[in-house]
Amino acid sequence: MFAREVHLVDYPSGIPTEQHFAILDNRLDDPSEGQVLVKNDFMSVDPAMRPRLSNGQQKINTPMTGGAIGTVVASRNAKFKEGDLVQHGSGWRDFYLSDGGDLSHLDARGFSPTLYMHVLGTTGFTAWGGMLITGALKDNENVFVSAAAGAVGSVAAQIAKIKNCYTIGSAGTDEKCKWLKETLGLDVAINYRHGVLRKSLKAAAVNGIDVYFDNVGGAHLDAAVPRMNVFGRIPVCGMISSYNNYGALSSGITTLSNMVYQRIRMEGFVVYDFEDRRDEFLDDMRGWVKSGQMQYQETIYNGLAEAPRALIGLFTGENTGKALVKLG
Amino acid sequence: MFAREVHLVDYPSGIPTEQHFAILDNRLDDPSEGQVLVKNDFMSVDPAMRPRLSNGQQKINTPMTGGAIGTVVASRNAKFKEGDLVQHGSGWRDFYLSDGGDLSHLDARGFSPTLYMHVLGTTGFTAWGGMLITGALKDNENVFVSAAAGAVGSVAAQIAKIKNCYTIGSAGTDEKCKWLKETLGLDVAINYRHGVLRKSLKAAAVNGIDVYFDNVGGAHLDAAVPRMNVFGRIPVCGMISSYNNYGALSSGITTLSNMVYQRIRMEGFVVYDFEDRRDEFLDDMRGWVKSGQMQYQETIYNGLAEAPRALIGLFTGENTGKALVKLG
Repeated sequence: MFAREVHLVDYPSGIPTEQHFAILDNRLDDPSEGQVLVKNDFMSVDPAMRPRLSNGQQKINTPMTGGAIGTVVASRNAKFKEGDLVQHGSGWRDFYLSDGGDLSHLDARGFSPTLYMHVLGTTGFTAWGGMLITGALKDNENVFVSAAAGAVGSVAAQIAKIKNCYTIGSAGTDEKCKWLKETLGLDVAINYRHGVLRKSLKAAAVNGIDVYFDNVGGAHLDAAVPRMNVFGRIPVCGMISSYNNYGALSSGITTLSNMVYQRIRMEGFVVYDFEDRRDEFLDDMRGWVKSGQMQYQETIYNGLAEAPRALIGLFTGENTGKALVKLG
Repeated sequence: MFAREVHLVDYPSGIPTEQHFAILDNRLDDPSEGQVLVKNDFMSVDPAMRPRLSNGQQKINTPMTGGAIGTVVASRNAKFKEGDLVQHGSGWRDFYLSDGGDLSHLDARGFSPTLYMHVLGTTGFTAWGGMLITGALKDNENVFVSAAAGAVGSVAAQIAKIKNCYTIGSAGTDEKCKWLKETLGLDVAINYRHGVLRKSLKAAAVNGIDVYFDNVGGAHLDAAVPRMNVFGRIPVCGMISSYNNYGALSSGITTLSNMVYQRIRMEGFVVYDFEDRRDEFLDDMRGWVKSGQMQYQETIYNGLAEAPRALIGLFTGENTGKALVKLG
């Protein structure tokens, strides 16, 4: 049989285009002893995939990788049987032949499996850990979240609201800002494409900022630093404004000297550092989803051929909430 | 009687000049009940004084403030008697009339009192706390200190050597670099005025950087961030490159996206947050000074009229080690 796969065929220098990818059929043997054949149902696209396309982690003419959920269709591995729902890191293809070591069973506990690719999965866990562990968020603080309508940002902003924080979010369209205010209940939503972000944020942050959850870097970070309160924290989840620019922020940060007197802590984090607290995260998040306190949106692309467009959409602002690709 | 005082008469916009200061005589009454008259022996100039000259903390036509040590010459306060050695924050004048509340006795314990204005005082405590508390320095790590020939930097760099760390320092003259290598025993000294700092640092940091003690900001910080190891720490002591530029770094930082994957922690600190550990600091530092492990240099200006020049020298690179002004 054949698996359809998306390969990277050229390194992008700015925002990737469909020309950087090829879709091709790759012959798969039948599972040999110990192997498991998985039919992928959904795959995820994430901003963090972009740096891998330039820093050498993603090889040319090899399949892209990324989170996926799928169903076992054939197994010669005792741990997996036909029909099992599994999670793994080999998306970007419709079938995947695994030795089983990189598959984990997904027990959805009554939630839609796709939630385990966002609020109940890596994106939710990233927001939870960044806010509560790295950001050490306390009840009733003042919070700013950039890219607050994005997959991680929208969870981070809602955690702030759940903790009764005064919460400001930024987004790039009026429609997203409306969603942030009306559906998520944020106190202020700033469309960063209107006016001067530095001034809008100054006006919004009436009591300063205790935690700035940074998804963006660049002008957002530069505007946030002078607004930080004493002992403020900046958990750095990502700097999407740099991802299509060789990793360098196109707008240099000039306000960092504020860090000294305000004793600001700025700290990068990645989700797998929180692994030992996954159960705590799942308890919190399942409760919030069930109670309706945690809202989410999905932008679902249809079919593997749409996967490059789904990824590109992360950088052009076309996706709302979590972007997924439905396969098969 | 009269006290000679240095007043700020105009807000500087770049590096201050002598024209921004005036020296004048101010009438002092005799001490009334509870008051103490102190003859100042030495005063300190510090880079951190510069931001106060622009941010409104220092008022025009009022005396400058800053660390001083002096001798009580008249007292109507039971806690102080004539001849007592005291420390306080009202330098920039030859006599100071206090209500006693802002004076503390200085027990020099056999060390020259001027050491309590640098290695055994605020500068030493700043370096100690920044390195060991904020920077969480461990033995055998890889360290970079900017402005390593400066008062705080030279102590920070020596603490790194005492902890057996591979230590890189930067300074702005070959003479300072020679001192860093030959007297302080640093592994590498970089003259940042030669060549491209980013490249020099990359070549020097053969095992990356675990702790970057930042005194400078700007191009130094931009060069250091990409060299940081996983879980690296950047205690931010000051950003002298911004102090004469309205608090903004003239060269914007573009490399911060490295913070995410390397999980770098960057954190501002000020010395008074460490106050509860002062005894521990003094134990360490007195031991290191006594054993000869802690070297220091003093640049001593003579007379109050030289005080503005001493301060200006901090920004033009003219002072080596701790700059003090001998008064009276």
